[in-house]
Amino acid sequence: MCGIVGYIGKRQAYPILIKGLKRLEYRGYDSAGVALINENNDLGVYKAKGKVSVLEAVAEKGDTTGCMGIAHTRWATHGVPSEANAHPHVSQSGNLTLVHNGIIENYATLREQLIERGYQFKSETDTEVLVQLIDYIMTTNDVNLATAVRSALNQVFGAYAIAVIDSRHPEQLIAARKSSPLAVGVVEDNSEFFLASDASPIAEYTMQIVYLNDEEMAIMECGKPLQVFKLNGEATDAVVKEVDVDLSMLDHEGFPHFMLKEIFDQPNVLKDCMRGRIIESPYSHQPEVLLSAVKNHRRELLQAKRIVIVSCGTSWHAGLIGKQLIEHFCRVPVEVAYASEFRYSDPVIEPNDVVMAISQSGETADTLAAIRQAKEKGALIFGIVNSVGSSIARESDTGTYIHVGPEIGVASTKAFTGQLVVLTMIALALGMAKGTVGQEEYEETINELVAIPEKMNKILEQNDKIHALSQKFTYAHNFLYLGRAWNYPVALEGALKLKEISYIHAEGYPAAEMKHGPIALIDAEMPVVFIATHHSLYQKNISNMQEVISRQGHIIAIVTEGDEEIKKMVDEVIEVPQTLACLAPLLSVIPLQLLSYHVAVAKGLNVDQPRNLAKSVTVE
Amino acid sequence: MCGIVGYIGKRQAYPILIKGLKRLEYRGYDSAGVALINENNDLGVYKAKGKVSVLEAVAEKGDTTGCMGIAHTRWATHGVPSEANAHPHVSQSGNLTLVHNGIIENYATLREQLIERGYQFKSETDTEVLVQLIDYIMTTNDVNLATAVRSALNQVFGAYAIAVIDSRHPEQLIAARKSSPLAVGVVEDNSEFFLASDASPIAEYTMQIVYLNDEEMAIMECGKPLQVFKLNGEATDAVVKEVDVDLSMLDHEGFPHFMLKEIFDQPNVLKDCMRGRIIESPYSHQPEVLLSAVKNHRRELLQAKRIVIVSCGTSWHAGLIGKQLIEHFCRVPVEVAYASEFRYSDPVIEPNDVVMAISQSGETADTLAAIRQAKEKGALIFGIVNSVGSSIARESDTGTYIHVGPEIGVASTKAFTGQLVVLTMIALALGMAKGTVGQEEYEETINELVAIPEKMNKILEQNDKIHALSQKFTYAHNFLYLGRAWNYPVALEGALKLKEISYIHAEGYPAAEMKHGPIALIDAEMPVVFIATHHSLYQKNISNMQEVISRQGHIIAIVTEGDEEIKKMVDEVIEVPQTLACLAPLLSVIPLQLLSYHVAVAKGLNVDQPRNLAKSVTVE
Repeated sequence: MCGIVGYIGKRQAYPILIKGLKRLEYRGYDSAGVALINENNDLGVYKAKGKVSVLEAVAEKGDTTGCMGIAHTRWATHGVPSEANAHPHVSQSGNLTLVHNGIIENYATLREQLIERGYQFKSETDTEVLVQLIDYIMTTNDVNLATAVRSALNQVFGAYAIAVIDSRHPEQLIAARKSSPLAVGVVEDNSEFFLASDASPIAEYTMQIVYLNDEEMAIMECGKPLQVFKLNGEATDAVVKEVDVDLSMLDHEGFPHFMLKEIFDQPNVLKDCMRGRIIESPYSHQPEVLLSAVKNHRRELLQAKRIVIVSCGTSWHAGLIGKQLIEHFCRVPVEVAYASEFRYSDPVIEPNDVVMAISQSGETADTLAAIRQAKEKGALIFGIVNSVGSSIARESDTGTYIHVGPEIGVASTKAFTGQLVVLTMIALALGMAKGTVGQEEYEETINELVAIPEKMNKILEQNDKIHALSQKFTYAHNFLYLGRAWNYPVALEGALKLKEISYIHAEGYPAAEMKHGPIALIDAEMPVVFIATHHSLYQKNISNMQEVISRQGHIIAIVTEGDEEIKKMVDEVIEVPQTLACLAPLLSVIPLQLLSYHVAVAKGLNVDQPRNLAKSVTVE
Repeated sequence: MCGIVGYIGKRQAYPILIKGLKRLEYRGYDSAGVALINENNDLGVYKAKGKVSVLEAVAEKGDTTGCMGIAHTRWATHGVPSEANAHPHVSQSGNLTLVHNGIIENYATLREQLIERGYQFKSETDTEVLVQLIDYIMTTNDVNLATAVRSALNQVFGAYAIAVIDSRHPEQLIAARKSSPLAVGVVEDNSEFFLASDASPIAEYTMQIVYLNDEEMAIMECGKPLQVFKLNGEATDAVVKEVDVDLSMLDHEGFPHFMLKEIFDQPNVLKDCMRGRIIESPYSHQPEVLLSAVKNHRRELLQAKRIVIVSCGTSWHAGLIGKQLIEHFCRVPVEVAYASEFRYSDPVIEPNDVVMAISQSGETADTLAAIRQAKEKGALIFGIVNSVGSSIARESDTGTYIHVGPEIGVASTKAFTGQLVVLTMIALALGMAKGTVGQEEYEETINELVAIPEKMNKILEQNDKIHALSQKFTYAHNFLYLGRAWNYPVALEGALKLKEISYIHAEGYPAAEMKHGPIALIDAEMPVVFIATHHSLYQKNISNMQEVISRQGHIIAIVTEGDEEIKKMVDEVIEVPQTLACLAPLLSVIPLQLLSYHVAVAKGLNVDQPRNLAKSVTVE
């Protein structure tokens, strides 16, 4: 988490830095800061607790001129959100200024050593030790900034993306990364450089991007080409990539929040996701799924004795549905692991195994570490990410992009359904290649998948009804979400949405597990959401509902259009169109997204930037 | 759930039935009832909402004489707990009386058909249709009770254990089962029969038990041997087993609750669990693990390409630790599945796969169904159960008993740690057989395992401190429990304990997942329990704690003795002795058991019989 922006060039840096921070607010927004060096080589540092807009009010009372600077929007790891803990941090000498995304794990030891050597600390952060350490190395060893940065980073354990400037040398901006992302925008004549945690703050100035690799440092000096070094000192080549970011996606276009826009975007962006991948066969004129990843890695995928899906949060829920899809269509066992647990578990991975990584941002620190480990053990890495050119996309052996456009709302919506569509297409394409799915089921599933966007529109038309219903639940402190089989991960996802943006303690469970504990929580105060669409376990769901009704729980049921039996039994019903069981999550999640959105809005909460969260979890 | 007792013989039935119900209250206790036929062939039926003690007060105002009868303690599935919904249910003619454990899934259809034929219903239960249907069949077809019961059961979908009597034929007691357990106690001269959901109500009268198999019916008539039939009408042999129940274990011996007794029992019963299984090698004089299941099925276990663990609730948490143990020591991939999800997922199971079922009672309906399905697919079934002679024990190909004595408290404690000890022994024995564990690690782990009971005693000595600490948290409505690696399932288990008996909404998470949503819940009102003993991820846990502290969360940390770093950071610390990382759960769970116990007692709740729950989940 945390977002970094930097600029050096011929223009005024301040407006570029502020605009960039706003693009990166999804990465954290508990405090922000900017450092600028003006034409007299004076350093101006402005910081504020709160959002970037608060920072603007503070900075604009001072001098915001200057053609180089760095800026930061924070998601607290060490130390409460406050002005003192906000970045940039300035060294004791007053010369160096630094912004950081990541965690310095050995900061406590380094801090003690520096205190012994006379350094005083102004913040509770792990970051401040880094700027003081660089300062100490420069002072005691008489080396230049680049050498001192390299030496300091070699003493540090942890994860970082940093940008650092020296007010005595305003011609130079230095950046480095390990495990946290960093991109440099370059222009042909090297007259200016743009630095940021992802491409979105850069894309309106240049499409030429260099993504720094792990343990690389970049030196940006106007008039010289970008210089990239490994942290061991070796020079390396900067590889320039052309990126394509749709800037119109970065606005919420008439919707009150990004989250609502993105919920309503789903029918259209899922069509984008399927475009060119679900086609009419030129031979049979029947529909078919064509994925280059499956085509190009057919042999490895067919050989796989086992597939392991690694992911976090909402993407982990998509993984649980992916497991069911792949096991159903491809008859190969699939394990779903939390990336954070997998990476430290010394997992059993054999060379023929396939590891799939699911991540919206493609930068999730734990997922990235997990695939690196699996790669070392010889697995084929298959990425399922949204952000084109992101670290996971680059480090995977193959993969399928979600292609649902940038997701800005911190609570993931369209990325989740996009992941499900991609997983369905992978399962179908691989199942057909393996011969484990019949032609009839294959075609029926494709046809139903293609029909999903229109069915989603029918649910979105019920927005007013769901809005009205949600007003009854703003009082609730707790919620249970229950579902079985395909809808069990939807229960987890529905609960997570409510938790993230409404701060209501919602928990999802497979419905039959309720009796092994959670049922003790049920009384007349406890709303229980049942996802009970009309598929094979319908009667079992009804039995579970009876158990809740016997204990006076208040039930909201997501049912299939035309359901009469459940309507008679329960308090609230939301209908979704009929579809195949394996596609049910694509529809049943939509009312849950809307429910959590409307509850949060009714509670007066900031839906797009919920407290404590950040969109892309780039620290462990 | 629900407990059934029946008696026919020469003694007064009432005291036997009531005592039996009390032994079965762990299976449900929201209402209870008893039906007796006295020497004038008059039927007396007494029912009450609440515990068995309430029923006694009601029944003893009436005539409780008679040498045959049936009784029931209920855990509601259909219809609220009430006198009307309590069993036994009486047929419209007044002749038949029936008790039932299970769910009749097609009850709504049958009920409508019977209403059309003039039957009136007095309860909202699924059970009442069964007694009316038997009545209808007897009346319209002029058949005897046994034939009518068989015919009715052939029209029913669902799960059941039933006992039924006819006041016109007091010489006969009829029982049948499908998916729900039922045991018959027999005596040599056939002068009396005892019927119950498990052996505990029978053991003080006879050790000779016949466990009915699925789809079997028993007819008990004094003076004749027990008659057993399949539901298709074929006669079959009754297999008598000798059981050995330690009746002293069925008392709470000076402790205020079974749960506290069972927490304090752990050091001793875990020694029982290891006895004869961890021995000194006669050759090397080094410690070794000897498990007959691993010895006798060595070939199948070594061949296994994959192990799947199926279980529910607390046993599922043990399974998550079992996965880590087996993967670590045996280097074979392990999947852990919710039994309820597994059974309906058309799981990918290959003939060389091993399926392990973990269940305290050995009667968990979903787990039992899961192993039946896996068996059909050719897997070797390995049972890890506590109740000797239970359904899962009988239907497994092999297994290892937990041997921790009967567990009465509804919130599982000693069964959980017993399961962990058994899983550790299995992983060690199998790892040694496979050659995937080195001699040094093998011996070190055994020696540490043997030392666990004494280390548990050191934690139990802190009971007063944990009691005092728990008083601060009775206000809390929500709790988070966080842990990583070996301690992640302990976080889930700690949260479940609190949920079950304190009705506080506690949720467990792998600590690093917190940032993907749950962190939004954290504010000064939210206690967060960190299980952060001193192992490889200690520093990562500290980073996660910093993130909580930055957001004012109130932290209770479970740490290793002598930890100074965390003590300085957080509000509350409970120390546990040092042990190996893989054995850490055996110690770190103890303070969490005590914490949940004391919070519940402080809230004035019934710890041994929490609302809505039942000990053994014998319905889906």
